Amino acid sequence: MNEGVIIAIDAMGGDHAPDIVIEGLDRVVRGRSDVAFLVHGDEARLAPLFERYPAAGRASRITHASDVIGMEVKPSQALRRGKGTSMWNAIDSVKAGAAGVVVSAGNTGALMAIAMLQLRTLEGVHRPALVASWPTVRGVTAVLDVGANVTADAEQLVEFAVMGEAYARARYGLSRPSIGLLNVGSEDMKGHEEIREAARLIRERQGDLDLDFRGFIEGDDISQGVVDVVVTDGFTGNIALKTAEGTARLVGGFVREALTAGPLAMLGAVLASGGLSRLTDRMDPRKVNAGVFLGLNGIVVKSHGGTDAVGFATAVETAIGLAPSRFAEEVGAKLRAAVAHAGAPANLGAIP
Amino acid sequence: MNEGVIIAIDAMGGDHAPDIVIEGLDRVVRGRSDVAFLVHGDEARLAPLFERYPAAGRASRITHASDVIGMEVKPSQALRRGKGTSMWNAIDSVKAGAAGVVVSAGNTGALMAIAMLQLRTLEGVHRPALVASWPTVRGVTAVLDVGANVTADAEQLVEFAVMGEAYARARYGLSRPSIGLLNVGSEDMKGHEEIREAARLIRERQGDLDLDFRGFIEGDDISQGVVDVVVTDGFTGNIALKTAEGTARLVGGFVREALTAGPLAMLGAVLASGGLSRLTDRMDPRKVNAGVFLGLNGIVVKSHGGTDAVGFATAVETAIGLAPSRFAEEVGAKLRAAVAHAGAPANLGAIP
Repeated sequence: MNEGVIIAIDAMGGDHAPDIVIEGLDRVVRGRSDVAFLVHGDEARLAPLFERYPAAGRASRITHASDVIGMEVKPSQALRRGKGTSMWNAIDSVKAGAAGVVVSAGNTGALMAIAMLQLRTLEGVHRPALVASWPTVRGVTAVLDVGANVTADAEQLVEFAVMGEAYARARYGLSRPSIGLLNVGSEDMKGHEEIREAARLIRERQGDLDLDFRGFIEGDDISQGVVDVVVTDGFTGNIALKTAEGTARLVGGFVREALTAGPLAMLGAVLASGGLSRLTDRMDPRKVNAGVFLGLNGIVVKSHGGTDAVGFATAVETAIGLAPSRFAEEVGAKLRAAVAHAGAPANLGAIP
Repeated sequence: MNEGVIIAIDAMGGDHAPDIVIEGLDRVVRGRSDVAFLVHGDEARLAPLFERYPAAGRASRITHASDVIGMEVKPSQALRRGKGTSMWNAIDSVKAGAAGVVVSAGNTGALMAIAMLQLRTLEGVHRPALVASWPTVRGVTAVLDVGANVTADAEQLVEFAVMGEAYARARYGLSRPSIGLLNVGSEDMKGHEEIREAARLIRERQGDLDLDFRGFIEGDDISQGVVDVVVTDGFTGNIALKTAEGTARLVGGFVREALTAGPLAMLGAVLASGGLSRLTDRMDPRKVNAGVFLGLNGIVVKSHGGTDAVGFATAVETAIGLAPSRFAEEVGAKLRAAVAHAGAPANLGAIP
């Protein structure tokens, strides 16, 4: 094993595991020696893969797990039957302090349930949030929550703002990310009560939170990169994210049709292939393949279950980028200070 | 004035009124004689426009309105000060039965407030909904509510389903439109309580409602055209719609960059211009420029405030398509029957 950043890997989660997992690790470690993997999975299936990908093998330590959590298992079942699975054991590596971040392409609901049970929420955080990196005109914006919870009250939205800001600093290298609350209008009177209350709380606690808070933004502002961090509840965020994915696919289909509409169009597409290949690259969902669970004692990176080795490598790169950050300390310190000044009791890491 | 369909027009609403309004009417009536307009606005400003666009003039009867509701006026102010404005008077034309549909590019909040006060909700409908036509892989899907309300309970979602279905039949000529409820997952256990309850109610009242209800859909299903009608609350629908608009603009920008990346790419774009112009046409927001308020005693078509004559003409065409429909009767009959069988009291047209 190499020295440096250590990442725990659930090698058996996802539609094409463990093959694309090990191939993905191989893509990551070729040409770098500062990362090591604690790989959890079926030794008999992993051994031949590490023979095929020796660079991945040199960077990995395998811990055998005899069982795997299927993609159709419900969270409650995963909690009862999860022990001894590759997912459970990978999360345990983080709980034990052997790794700071875990990556899995497995069952999302199971991953969240086990992670919450094993890692518990950070002090000051009521519920974890799932954050997505959203391509924009200006680069990339962090959007959270995109589906860890169905609802969020004002205090939770404030916590998401603090977590999203720390994430944008750690992941994108921004010194002072700007933050917006997703709403249906930019006037103060519009939208749900909890969103207006969250805006009020962030402004009231500015002395402790120290956020570059820009107020309300609307749906079309996300892709325009109006802010670096978009805060919303998990229901709205999930629908916005999936709607954007569907729209990008729709427009991409229209473009393909336009460029195959006849021999002239096809010749044109060949001539424009340089620019178009960059377009394809920018639209490649594998390049943004990582949802990250924030707010636990340890960071959990979720790769898309149907991804390939390129996509899994993106998720691992995300994990590597987050590993050295002092995310938990920063978030905890801000939320403790804000809540102490507000006089409310801080959450002590229990699942509510 | 011509005989046939009669549409009331707020000539003064919107950023570029009344010029683009009258030019838009002209585009609509050139080549057809089955439509007439009741045009409300400032006679002194309208007279020279009708000289410039004589076809529009022949199809119109002007009623002078000395005042106009500005784009920045709050709904409460519009209700107090609205009388005598072009918007108020245009809606009054519908209330008086002189026209079945009204079109305005003016202030959305004011339009909704005045329309609700003057036209009242249909019997059986608690709140109106704003419906948008959403381009999809298969054609077009009706999405409602996209912003008339911030919340919707289960009964209101059921009403939206009935209204959306009647709208899709009237507007798109579908004989039996399919309906989906927007949610974060297709499993029965996911999502907000009111959405699960709405699904249960629609199935329970199937004998009266007679809807082709397909259950839950997710955000990415909208653009794929998985159903003909998407039902959601106004907060979620507004954010989904604006997120899709922003994403389409983002991807459109990427495509333009790709096709201007260098001389070869630009030559390629020229060769592919046939297909690309069809793409531009499909992506043209003016071609889907109409939000329609459903659920009142009269249909209210909202054109985008910043649109041009082409966009306003689209809104008027939408109004013309809806005018002959028996929308109110159909919706009223279904909702009365369903509520009578369920034993709950029907709403009698009051604003709740």
